[in-house]
Amino acid sequence: MTVEVDFGDDGLVPAVAQDAESGEVLMLAYVSPEALERTLETGRAHYYSRSRDELWEKGASSGHTQAVQEVRVDCDADTLLYLVEQNVGACHTGRRSCFYRTIDGEDVGEKVFDPDDVYE
Amino acid sequence: MTVEVDFGDDGLVPAVAQDAESGEVLMLAYVSPEALERTLETGRAHYYSRSRDELWEKGASSGHTQAVQEVRVDCDADTLLYLVEQNVGACHTGRRSCFYRTIDGEDVGEKVFDPDDVYE
Repeated sequence: MTVEVDFGDDGLVPAVAQDAESGEVLMLAYVSPEALERTLETGRAHYYSRSRDELWEKGASSGHTQAVQEVRVDCDADTLLYLVEQNVGACHTGRRSCFYRTIDGEDVGEKVFDPDDVYE
Repeated sequence: MTVEVDFGDDGLVPAVAQDAESGEVLMLAYVSPEALERTLETGRAHYYSRSRDELWEKGASSGHTQAVQEVRVDCDADTLLYLVEQNVGACHTGRRSCFYRTIDGEDVGEKVFDPDDVYE
């Protein structure tokens, strides 16, 4: 790893997950040094949950994993971009992307699974 | 504005700026309630600088403004997505996108202007 990421005071950086093929922005989550290390080691997206205070692998329970093709770093080295192949959908609501609403509340998202079938 | 954004303890949410046409992820910056309001009012991207502790309009000094076509909100309502038309380039280094490096340090970005010509 050549670029030194600036994890700041709280030890986390935001990571944007983008569909490597379609370019769709899928989600944003936070990454700790260990989450980044696991991501690079395994090729599967790992994040750090601020609410649960733990490392998690995307899709570990839902099966909706993200195969990471490339990790990019921004100019300030305090934000990451994961270019991923998203299995099924990124959002727990059943949409392909978590950004399925406009600020006006219009639903512009693509529904790709039924959450009731995936989460108990 | 229908969706109530959760600005959290520090009063800021991350906003991802994406090229509305090409889908390229251009940058990530932070947004205060006032920055969001100005963005929606003017149709030009506004952010809040955590280091300078002030509202700023993207491109106010460089001229590299962002015309905002749409603002989206994620499922948790704590992250925004700005779909923009980026004038020239988003990054102060002269690249089109701030995410011009891989984690291995390879420069994969498109240089679109000379920073020496823009910033004094």
